[in-house]
Amino acid sequence: MDNDVKFMRLALEQAREALRRDEVPIGCVLTYDGRVVGRGYNLTEKFQDVTAHAEMQAITAACRTFGGKYLQGCTLYVTVEPCVMCAGAIGWAQVSRVVYGAADERRGFSRLAPHALHPRCQVSSGVLEEECATLMKEFFNRKRG
Amino acid sequence: MDNDVKFMRLALEQAREALRRDEVPIGCVLTYDGRVVGRGYNLTEKFQDVTAHAEMQAITAACRTFGGKYLQGCTLYVTVEPCVMCAGAIGWAQVSRVVYGAADERRGFSRLAPHALHPRCQVSSGVLEEECATLMKEFFNRKRG
Repeated sequence: MDNDVKFMRLALEQAREALRRDEVPIGCVLTYDGRVVGRGYNLTEKFQDVTAHAEMQAITAACRTFGGKYLQGCTLYVTVEPCVMCAGAIGWAQVSRVVYGAADERRGFSRLAPHALHPRCQVSSGVLEEECATLMKEFFNRKRG
Repeated sequence: MDNDVKFMRLALEQAREALRRDEVPIGCVLTYDGRVVGRGYNLTEKFQDVTAHAEMQAITAACRTFGGKYLQGCTLYVTVEPCVMCAGAIGWAQVSRVVYGAADERRGFSRLAPHALHPRCQVSSGVLEEECATLMKEFFNRKRG
């Protein structure tokens, strides 16, 4: 659990990097054996491409780290619950564990695609939930304001 | 319908390009107003990256064509039913219509994430189904042989 908080803090750092670039502030790190093997933050505005979610970039980065497309044994930390697209990618990559901070009632995979992850993938939620959610609220309030 | 066959043939050309590179033979084209605005074929082996599906690449290509991340008014033609990941991306991009050839009973979105697409997205299936399915069967038979 201490590790979960530690790595979620790193995911939050990624999310803050997105915020600095005026992107929806979601960040992600992938770990293997206690080390970070991939990281990413949302860049959909910069690239004008919906596929540039934090998780997608972290997965691509981790695949490069390993030189392989399967990420068994890896844990993915992300500040907000993955969407259907990202959950699908996490499933294909056979990530072993997913830890997310804030839930996404509207677009989260747990409601829209509950079987997208690998059947053996473990899921934890609510780690640093408030910090993760606050970042999102600040961003959307600023946009609306 | 004539247009559907015509564009599915182009998607099949993309799939054959994947086959030539010993990739799972799935191909995709995106059209707008009767013109191709993006295309792609599966390159997960080359890149060793599960996110390199045909649809993801076609979406990224079309976003570059338009310089924008939304693909309203576009039709996506793909030789095999999109998976959850690709359906999620198609949903985010607000693609207006999806036409696929062969169904994917195991990994297809229609079973695993039936609400992944945009609510107004229209779906057609079975266009050149046999050609699309045969390409897949040939590939997997060759792999097993």
